[in-house]
Amino acid sequence: MDSTNKPSDPSDRQLHITRAAAICFARSGFHGASMQDICAEAGMSAGALYRYFPSKAAIILAIAEAERERHALLFEPLLSASDPLRALQEIGTTFLQAAATGDMLAADVIAEAGRNPEVKEAFDKNALLVHETICRALERGQHLGVIDPDLDIPAACQLLMSLGDGLCAQRCAAPGVGLDRVIAAMDLLLNRFLRPRSA
Amino acid sequence: MDSTNKPSDPSDRQLHITRAAAICFARSGFHGASMQDICAEAGMSAGALYRYFPSKAAIILAIAEAERERHALLFEPLLSASDPLRALQEIGTTFLQAAATGDMLAADVIAEAGRNPEVKEAFDKNALLVHETICRALERGQHLGVIDPDLDIPAACQLLMSLGDGLCAQRCAAPGVGLDRVIAAMDLLLNRFLRPRSA
Repeated sequence: MDSTNKPSDPSDRQLHITRAAAICFARSGFHGASMQDICAEAGMSAGALYRYFPSKAAIILAIAEAERERHALLFEPLLSASDPLRALQEIGTTFLQAAATGDMLAADVIAEAGRNPEVKEAFDKNALLVHETICRALERGQHLGVIDPDLDIPAACQLLMSLGDGLCAQRCAAPGVGLDRVIAAMDLLLNRFLRPRSA
Repeated sequence: MDSTNKPSDPSDRQLHITRAAAICFARSGFHGASMQDICAEAGMSAGALYRYFPSKAAIILAIAEAERERHALLFEPLLSASDPLRALQEIGTTFLQAAATGDMLAADVIAEAGRNPEVKEAFDKNALLVHETICRALERGQHLGVIDPDLDIPAACQLLMSLGDGLCAQRCAAPGVGLDRVIAAMDLLLNRFLRPRSA
């Protein structure tokens, strides 16, 4: 609850609500979190909240839109990096750190909410945009000679995105394996999987 | 609905119910599926179903137990295979085929149901058993000279399990990339990531 800190600007208020909702969704799941929980977390009355969002679906659509903008910022450097593979590793590290601190909508919340067709379409579109960006970056890397020219880029990219989803869902946390070791193993995996064989 | 085919043996009936429930969970999520939906899918009255399982949590605990037995069978060959890496690739293919045909409890259903602590404990225990089995197999592979001796096995294993979770959640399906290409890319990834560098 953060009622002392409620912003007065409408777009700031929307952001304030979506952040409160993301906390509730992470804690209780999309279906488990009620509009009442979200009001409490945002420190707002139901009347005030409904003025901005008529439903949980409307809130998660706003979260999907925010995710799209965030992904665009996160993945943009891939398209101009001198070494797209190194840039991908840096994005992977940022991603893993965000997932570890819970600063990311859990993959299972997205899947859960995505049983609503409109929500599913929004997140599917985001996933497709990321897939296209990574594919373009890896193809650029092939031309630059830093990515294996024989690699099936769309299939490899699908594997990498599944790896990201799985890491984000955090179902498996091997005992005693800290974030630093997972990041190091991921760097190694990306290097070995993607670099030209002669490198 | 499969009411013509209801088994009469009690343990077969339990299996019949858990299968019907898994179909409902995949369709509507753990929270979205009601006991009534499961009754309808199993072609049973509520009274008959409650005789076996008092709640959805009890059903998903039985599913977790079935998953544990299934994993034991699936991963057992890893521990005696002459080439543990090749055996891992075969398991990965089996896993991907099962995920593609929906013959597997979706990762998001497990995560969703796992907001119940008892259910979470059951699935966490399963994940840990699989992690231990894969680690032991990869360490055996190191001794046999078919796995990179310098690899951080527990961290690598966590990545591979996250990849499996992400593939199972199937959030990303790149357009036009068929299962055969994903399997081929996964074989390549496992080979390059895990084999000794001289191989």
